[in-house]
Amino acid sequence: MRDIATAELLRTIVSRRPAVHCLTNTVVQALTANMLLAVGAIPSMSSDIAEVADFVSGADALLINLGTLDGDRKSAIEAAITAARKKNIPWILDPVLIDRAPGRLAYAEELMARRPALIRGNKGEIETLNANPQALALETGAIIAVTGATDLITDGREDKTFSGGHELMSRVTGIGCAGTALLAACLAVADRAERLTAVAIGLALLGAAGEKAAKSAPGPGSFAADILDQIYLSSQSSLQERKES
Amino acid sequence: MRDIATAELLRTIVSRRPAVHCLTNTVVQALTANMLLAVGAIPSMSSDIAEVADFVSGADALLINLGTLDGDRKSAIEAAITAARKKNIPWILDPVLIDRAPGRLAYAEELMARRPALIRGNKGEIETLNANPQALALETGAIIAVTGATDLITDGREDKTFSGGHELMSRVTGIGCAGTALLAACLAVADRAERLTAVAIGLALLGAAGEKAAKSAPGPGSFAADILDQIYLSSQSSLQERKES
Amino acid sequence: MRDIATAELLRTIVSRRPAVHCLTNTVVQALTANMLLAVGAIPSMSSDIAEVADFVSGADALLINLGTLDGDRKSAIEAAITAARKKNIPWILDPVLIDRAPGRLAYAEELMARRPALIRGNKGEIETLNANPQALALETGAIIAVTGATDLITDGREDKTFSGGHELMSRVTGIGCAGTALLAACLAVADRAERLTAVAIGLALLGAAGEKAAKSAPGPGSFAADILDQIYLSSQSSLQERKES
Repeated sequence: MRDIATAELLRTIVSRRPAVHCLTNTVVQALTANMLLAVGAIPSMSSDIAEVADFVSGADALLINLGTLDGDRKSAIEAAITAARKKNIPWILDPVLIDRAPGRLAYAEELMARRPALIRGNKGEIETLNANPQALALETGAIIAVTGATDLITDGREDKTFSGGHELMSRVTGIGCAGTALLAACLAVADRAERLTAVAIGLALLGAAGEKAAKSAPGPGSFAADILDQIYLSSQSSLQERKES
Repeated sequence: MRDIATAELLRTIVSRRPAVHCLTNTVVQALTANMLLAVGAIPSMSSDIAEVADFVSGADALLINLGTLDGDRKSAIEAAITAARKKNIPWILDPVLIDRAPGRLAYAEELMARRPALIRGNKGEIETLNANPQALALETGAIIAVTGATDLITDGREDKTFSGGHELMSRVTGIGCAGTALLAACLAVADRAERLTAVAIGLALLGAAGEKAAKSAPGPGSFAADILDQIYLSSQSSLQERKES
Repeated sequence: MRDIATAELLRTIVSRRPAVHCLTNTVVQALTANMLLAVGAIPSMSSDIAEVADFVSGADALLINLGTLDGDRKSAIEAAITAARKKNIPWILDPVLIDRAPGRLAYAEELMARRPALIRGNKGEIETLNANPQALALETGAIIAVTGATDLITDGREDKTFSGGHELMSRVTGIGCAGTALLAACLAVADRAERLTAVAIGLALLGAAGEKAAKSAPGPGSFAADILDQIYLSSQSSLQERKES
C-alpha cells in the first residue's frame, strides 16, 4: 500500500519538479542540493537579502536550517519566511543543535510562532523545544518529526512510528539536514491534507535508501555517494512502474 | 586532430600548473576546487577583501560565479576583476540563475562591461543577457558558451557546436560551475588567439568525462566522484601519450 | 608497537566521542566534518560570534583554519580561542596559504602568541613562519607538524619523521585541512605528555588510509570517498581487536 503511495509521490516530484529554496548551513549545502536533485527537485540556496524573496517567490517550499547562523542569515530567514507565507507555500524548520547553543534555541522558538509546516530534529533537539512532541505539534500547528534509530512523526492527533535507516547515516555530515530537504520536496507537491503521509513517505524513503547503501558501502565516504544513488534509483524505478502498469 | 590538441592542452596544464582564483558560491566550492585539482590546476577561493587582490595577482585566471552573492562578495569581485585586468589574465563570468533573480541580472550586466574572456551559462541564463549569443559575444568581446544537451560556443564570428555529456550531469549540483572552472584552467594556459579552441577542448573534455562516468555510475552520488576520476585519467593519459610518442 | 598505541588511541576516540569545534574555511567544511565523524569524533562548525563560545565550551578541542577568512570570522576566532584557553582544551592552528597572502601571515603570527597546542602546515606555510621548525616549536610552545611527501613532527626537543601517504592526497581539496581536524581529535583525548605521540599516530593513520585508498581508487573523486572509508575501517578494526584480545 505504502509502496504505491511512495511511487505516486516520487512520480509527482519528477513531473512537477518542485523548486525548494534552502537557507541552510554552509557545511551541508552541497549534499542538500544533491539530495534534492537526486529525487528530481530543483534546489536554490541564495541567502542574499537582496534576492532571497525573489527566489522564494519562485519556489514551492522553503527550508530553514539553523546551522552556521549569523546576523545576515537571520535577516534573510526573516525575508524568506515572509515571502513563503505570502505565497502560501510550506516552510520547514530544522533546528540544528539548538541543544548546544542557548541563543539558537531562543531564535528557534521565535521562528516556531511563524507557522512552519514541519519541524524536523533529532530527539535532543526536539525535546529542547518541548518534552512532548504531540504537544509541540498542537502548539505550533506543525508536523513534528523526531528522527533517530526509530522515527516518530506526529501532528498532535495521529502518530506514525517506524524504524529503519543505518548507523552509517550518522557518520556523514548533513544526512539529517539533507533528509529534511527531501521532506520539503515531498511537502512541496502534497495536498495540505496529505502532509503527514508525505512526511512519512519521505522519511521511509530516506531510511530505505540508507539501508540499501549500507549493504554496498564499506564506510561513510562511499555511503554518502551510495545513498544519493539509491534515492535516484527509487525515483527512476517509480517512473518505470508507471510504464509497466 | 582534436585529440592531439586536447592532449597537448592537458599536458600544458600539468606542466604549468595554472593557479585559478575562484570567487564562487559556497555550494559548489569543494567540487570546483576538486575539478581544478583533477586536471592539474591549483585552486584558491578566498573572498576576503583584505587579501583577494593578493591571490588574484598570483593567479593565471579568475573565475567569477554569481551564486550565493552578498555585499561583501560583491566588493571582493570588484577588487578581483581590477587585479585580473591589471595583470592581464583572463577572467570568466558564470552568471548563475540570473534568470531567477532580477537584481542578479543587473549586476551581471554591470560586470559584462569589464571585458570577461568568457561568459558560460545555460540557455536560460545566456538568453536573459541577450537572445542572440553571437551578438552578445560581439557586444562584450567575450567568448560565449551556452551549455546544455547541445553546447554552442561563439566569439561572434565563428561558432562551434557539439553534443555530449549525460543527463546525470544535471543531477549533481555544481557540475556546470565546476566545468566553468575547468574552462578557466584551459584559458589560463592558452594563447589569446587560441581561446575559442581552448574553450571547445575544455567543454568536450567535460562532456566526454560525463559520458564515461555515466557508464559506471548507478546514480548521481557515484557519478560526482567518477567524473572527477575521468578528468584526472584524461590528464594522466595525456602524459602517457607523450612518453609513448 | 605503534599499532597497539594506534588501536588504543582510536578506541579512546570512539569511547569518549570528543567534540571538535572547527572554525574552518567553507571549501573544506564538509570533508572536515566527515573525517571527524569517520573516526568517531563529533564536529561542530558555527562561526557566529553570538554562539561560538558556547560551542567551544562544550568541546574537547578547537581547530582554527585560516582559509576563507573575513572580519566576522576573525571575531569568532578571537572568541573561540579565548573560550578554549579558559576551558584548557587544546587548540590547533592550520595556517592555510599564508605563503600566498601577506595579511594572512600577519594574522597567523598574532595567533601563534596565543599558545596553540599544534601548528600544522605544508613546507611552504611553516617556512613562512620560521625556516627552522624546531625553533618555531620552542618559540610558540606548540608541536609543529610539517606535512608533505615526508612528514616532520617536532616539539623542539624531539623530532619524528616518516613517509607515507599518496600523491592523490594532494588532488582532493581539504585533505590536509581535514587531516588537521583528525589530529585535533587525537589531541582531544591525549594526555598533555602524550601529545607528540598522538600527533604522530594521527598523521600515520591518515597516511596509511591514503595509501590504502589509492590502491582501489582510479582517481581523486573515488579517492576522497575511499580515504574516509579507510579511516572508518581503521577505527572499527581497533574495536574488533579489543574484542579479540
